[in-house]
Amino acid sequence: MGDGLGGPRASATVTTGELLRLIRDGRATTRADLASLTGLARSTVGQRLDALIAGGLVYEAKKGPSTGGRPPTVLAFNESAGVVLAVDLGATHCRIAVADLNNATLAEVAGDLDIALGPEKVIERVMRRCHELLKLAGRVAADVRGVGLGVPGPVEFASGRPVSPPIMPGWDGVSIPELVRKQFDAPVLVDNDVNIMALGEWWAQLRDDPDILFIKVGTGIGCGIVAGGEIYRGSQGAAGDLGHIQVTDAVDALCRCGNVGCIEAVAGGAAIARQLRTLGYEANTSRDVVKLVRTGNTDAVRLVRTAGRQLGSVLASAVNFFNPSVIVMGGDIAHAHEQLLAGVREVVYQRSLPLATRHLRILRSGLGDRAGVTGAGVMVIERILSSTDVLGGMSGGMTETA
Amino acid sequence: MGDGLGGPRASATVTTGELLRLIRDGRATTRADLASLTGLARSTVGQRLDALIAGGLVYEAKKGPSTGGRPPTVLAFNESAGVVLAVDLGATHCRIAVADLNNATLAEVAGDLDIALGPEKVIERVMRRCHELLKLAGRVAADVRGVGLGVPGPVEFASGRPVSPPIMPGWDGVSIPELVRKQFDAPVLVDNDVNIMALGEWWAQLRDDPDILFIKVGTGIGCGIVAGGEIYRGSQGAAGDLGHIQVTDAVDALCRCGNVGCIEAVAGGAAIARQLRTLGYEANTSRDVVKLVRTGNTDAVRLVRTAGRQLGSVLASAVNFFNPSVIVMGGDIAHAHEQLLAGVREVVYQRSLPLATRHLRILRSGLGDRAGVTGAGVMVIERILSSTDVLGGMSGGMTETA
Repeated sequence: MGDGLGGPRASATVTTGELLRLIRDGRATTRADLASLTGLARSTVGQRLDALIAGGLVYEAKKGPSTGGRPPTVLAFNESAGVVLAVDLGATHCRIAVADLNNATLAEVAGDLDIALGPEKVIERVMRRCHELLKLAGRVAADVRGVGLGVPGPVEFASGRPVSPPIMPGWDGVSIPELVRKQFDAPVLVDNDVNIMALGEWWAQLRDDPDILFIKVGTGIGCGIVAGGEIYRGSQGAAGDLGHIQVTDAVDALCRCGNVGCIEAVAGGAAIARQLRTLGYEANTSRDVVKLVRTGNTDAVRLVRTAGRQLGSVLASAVNFFNPSVIVMGGDIAHAHEQLLAGVREVVYQRSLPLATRHLRILRSGLGDRAGVTGAGVMVIERILSSTDVLGGMSGGMTETA
Repeated sequence: MGDGLGGPRASATVTTGELLRLIRDGRATTRADLASLTGLARSTVGQRLDALIAGGLVYEAKKGPSTGGRPPTVLAFNESAGVVLAVDLGATHCRIAVADLNNATLAEVAGDLDIALGPEKVIERVMRRCHELLKLAGRVAADVRGVGLGVPGPVEFASGRPVSPPIMPGWDGVSIPELVRKQFDAPVLVDNDVNIMALGEWWAQLRDDPDILFIKVGTGIGCGIVAGGEIYRGSQGAAGDLGHIQVTDAVDALCRCGNVGCIEAVAGGAAIARQLRTLGYEANTSRDVVKLVRTGNTDAVRLVRTAGRQLGSVLASAVNFFNPSVIVMGGDIAHAHEQLLAGVREVVYQRSLPLATRHLRILRSGLGDRAGVTGAGVMVIERILSSTDVLGGMSGGMTETA
């Protein structure tokens, strides 16, 4: 104590990646812009810019018709200087995209893939698909600047290893980046699927709202948190584990986590399917629930509405605690019907504090199935561009020079 | 979409305040250090440093005995270049400190002050005490570089105005900074008291833990959140409002917020006092509860333990959601006895997910009554030093030059 305050730890260095982002975001179009925005010496700016141009990430575009003499030029970001691979692995399903450095999709594929096949087989199949997609997009493996990957379980983000994931047998502690880097020599980031979905939704439609929650109601219930425009992971990467918050002490609501009365065990897709079975319906998965709801079955509609209210009581607490400006609801069940959202809204607006709900919006996912790959792309692109070694993979390992 | 990714918005400029922080934190002791750490041109560093030295914030200290020629010097932060005022207003109590720019206390006073007297009278009395403390510390009003102030209610942080504060009659919408600036021409930051207590605890003992919760159990129950080393306020400044999370639907637990069954209405100090009255004890405030607990009264001890368990069920949800590495428990009741913490620990470790509690520590406040003024000081010092206009109040309104 006494020796230095600590406080917000802003980096005091301007990286080459930050110069690149100023150009990409249109905030700087000339060398003079870059020098005045950053305070860097003109010579430093020039040196780094030369490296970015040599690396193909920046080019000098003609500003307009030449009026004699040297034509005026502006600096522009070359979003085609590379591609990223975005992978969203679900329990039984997978979606893979190739995107440019502005996260525009160049090629994409979705299909069944059982996560229980284990890491070697799953990653091998995903990699094969990646190569096919690259070919389709007219790109090669050397163009890949980064890989972003979401998995349906908790992940130690720094190492990209799943941590005791309940529905991913064989994946515990496996280094996913190591498996991926056998195929692509580029940064690999792995995160929980709900986190990247939250980031995807934020990026696609909510960039003016720094603090949002994304709630996925599928077989289970998960939550991704964006705080200040970034994924919030908490101290062990476990943040957002909202599915195991207790809502009842009824003994019949036994949860796969070992506790009783978790919200997932009463309001998740599997729990609703179970309740439908006790009423004599044939319903085993959240998809079966969705089918019944879509046919207008009143038991299914009533159960989904009730699930919405129960989820609403948990979200009311989350709203009081986190004070987001938007809650985005995604996943099979949320997509099935407005009934779930109606139940959520009913209870959240009743139970949360007035100040916290004054401007709160509760929306259905805008991206649907594509939220995961969208967020995986954003995650890895931002990492690449903010790196001090943004040119690392681009031009033979160039590093920062002051 | 498509035009720029958004993403984490790092500022791309190195401010004079950042140079100052590098010197304060001991990361830079020479001009060459500053240039190489920031990438700024030597001439820019020199220009800004001259301004910092002229403004009295930095001085050149002798490194050791002269060996002939120009003696070697190192740059040092002058924590005595100014002072800050730190004010912690409670419902009936107030603590005020004068601190140097390293947040070391120079003079401090605590005493009774009824917030219900209204903003004009309360601020006037606080200001009078501030002048007395400054005199005691051998300082004058012109030395004051900033004022940090905590109040027992929700605050719109940007404007420093309380928003419908339930226990601050007459304060709704009042600009506290305006009242303070009648006396001191310096930045004034106002925040909820639990937020500054959280920041104070973090700064004093937990700077290696970026994500912590501070829980105050006094008359009511409040929560301050530190995420990534900064106060997290949420989109309306309402984050952390944990006291009004519902834990029961028993109708007798009517809360002052208008709902029933809020955790505050069953486990706060006022609620425990009410339960003690129904058992025939004379107990009106949380202080009365504390007195009974300290005498070893078994009813009081049992009720506090039960309150701890109920609070533990709410905190288990918060732990699943936010995944902090530390929960700090403060306020009258938490300080009274280990029983409250024991109850909290019992339920949190039982109900939260293994990954989230693997390294979770639940501690009693280290600062006690001083958490508020400590955090108020940190808050305002960090604001002053990170400002682009760090020299603003110091040397006649100098601003940044590139």
